[in-house]
Amino acid sequence: MENTKRFVLSVLVENHAGVLSRVSGLFSRRGYNIDSLTVGETNNPEQSRMTIVVRGDEYILEQIEKQLSKLVEVISIVHCDLSTTVVRELALIKVHVTVETRATVIETCNIFRVHIVDVGSESLVIEATGSEDKIASLIRLLQPYGIMELVRTGLTAMQRGSQVLE
Amino acid sequence: MENTKRFVLSVLVENHAGVLSRVSGLFSRRGYNIDSLTVGETNNPEQSRMTIVVRGDEYILEQIEKQLSKLVEVISIVHCDLSTTVVRELALIKVHVTVETRATVIETCNIFRVHIVDVGSESLVIEATGSEDKIASLIRLLQPYGIMELVRTGLTAMQRGSQVLE
Repeated sequence: MENTKRFVLSVLVENHAGVLSRVSGLFSRRGYNIDSLTVGETNNPEQSRMTIVVRGDEYILEQIEKQLSKLVEVISIVHCDLSTTVVRELALIKVHVTVETRATVIETCNIFRVHIVDVGSESLVIEATGSEDKIASLIRLLQPYGIMELVRTGLTAMQRGSQVLE
Repeated sequence: MENTKRFVLSVLVENHAGVLSRVSGLFSRRGYNIDSLTVGETNNPEQSRMTIVVRGDEYILEQIEKQLSKLVEVISIVHCDLSTTVVRELALIKVHVTVETRATVIETCNIFRVHIVDVGSESLVIEATGSEDKIASLIRLLQPYGIMELVRTGLTAMQRGSQVLE
């Protein structure tokens, strides 16, 4: 599809058991394509906040917003304007190292300002936080050494400035 | 419950539409209490990896592992031994600042080695990565200034050393 884009939605929901299942069920039943979904606590114990990254055109976005707002657990939805939103992801990367490659891998980590959180005889575990692009570049650079294991949280997002989702 | 503990499960799943809905549906139908669930890409485009934090006793953990392993999309499950696992979370925190408090808030961020990713006239947005304890301490220290908005990814986990979930 020519008009297919990625959209980032911030969704404030009531912190009930089952809300994750209802929201993700809505997406899978209707065949909407989720790139990632994260859900975590907010400063209010009664509310959670989801960040949903979805692919589609403007029509699909509109449909998703309508369907989500029908769920009783959904308090509010914002379609994030990416030019005014901080979008971040956390990845843990286990990379294979040898006596020969260890120093170069550590140097790469320093350049990217990411943290080495575990050092084994044959592997390093790297904690990398940043934009998707930064994490993708880092992974590309580490790929030749051998990525043994990779786990990512999916994107989380917050509007810049003093505006608040409520 | 006296024997209630928190368990961290790493679950490797096939990257199908609907797998998130099936997994979260399993938890909500059976009334298991999820503290957090994250799902993200791995190094293999056909697989995703979930980190599920759940509360319960040993019996519930066993039931959950059994139920999960029945799902056709589930490739493998590991109950993480927290003494040998890196567990991390990413939080974005919008904190209220004034001309008087800005410097103190920035100092707190430096002590915690977290990044300020947006500076507004009345707010700062902080990107904090770390253990749950570190993020909880930071939030506690920032609380008096006024936390305007908080979004967290939920925990993600990886075994230390060269062992790999596959």
